[in-house]
Amino acid sequence: MSKKKSAYLIKQRAFLKVFLLAEIEKGQSYGLQLKKIIRHKFEAYGFEPDHSEIYRSLKELTRDGYLKKTEELVEGADLKTVEVYRIKDKDKVKAYKELVKPDLDRSRDLLRKAIDEIYS
Amino acid sequence: MSKKKSAYLIKQRAFLKVFLLAEIEKGQSYGLQLKKIIRHKFEAYGFEPDHSEIYRSLKELTRDGYLKKTEELVEGADLKTVEVYRIKDKDKVKAYKELVKPDLDRSRDLLRKAIDEIYS
Repeated sequence: MSKKKSAYLIKQRAFLKVFLLAEIEKGQSYGLQLKKIIRHKFEAYGFEPDHSEIYRSLKELTRDGYLKKTEELVEGADLKTVEVYRIKDKDKVKAYKELVKPDLDRSRDLLRKAIDEIYS
Repeated sequence: MSKKKSAYLIKQRAFLKVFLLAEIEKGQSYGLQLKKIIRHKFEAYGFEPDHSEIYRSLKELTRDGYLKKTEELVEGADLKTVEVYRIKDKDKVKAYKELVKPDLDRSRDLLRKAIDEIYS
């Protein structure tokens, strides 16, 4: 009845969401910039999530009350509108980060264990 | 044209296959025992792959010439047939392990990097 759930590695959506929240906490809030940061930080690891995957994550975080999204005008060669994301609920973000941490640690440890078992 | 492929974490199938090959190299060769070993080694990490996932991996490794499968009679309360897996091609197994190693390392490092970025 209360069968324990088995999990392989942390799902990409949770990985992206917690990373995006952490970046927005640090002050990175333009949608386009967030995408660039993710690619910059993870491309050395072969991970370059596509546009739609990142935007779905931002959309869910906004829908679920972690972020608020506004559209702002920026001046450049042309005047244009960009999406800006900000933290809406600091405590909620903190709780989400704490919730996901064990799954990230577990996944890293599962891989460590496997590498140790297979290659030693 | 030659777009670089993006990858998130190593796929479960590859993870299981390389682990199974390593265990069978060490001498664990009964289908049922392999399942027990996997669960024993990884349950502390919340990972308990189901029967069909393990058997699909063994089937593919047999089909692709890494393993050979025989059926053997074992004596117990009843006489019964069990599936026994052995390494068929040592060099091929070695090559597969070497092929998968960078993907395991990359996945572990991607998680390390994310944990470091998010929680520091």
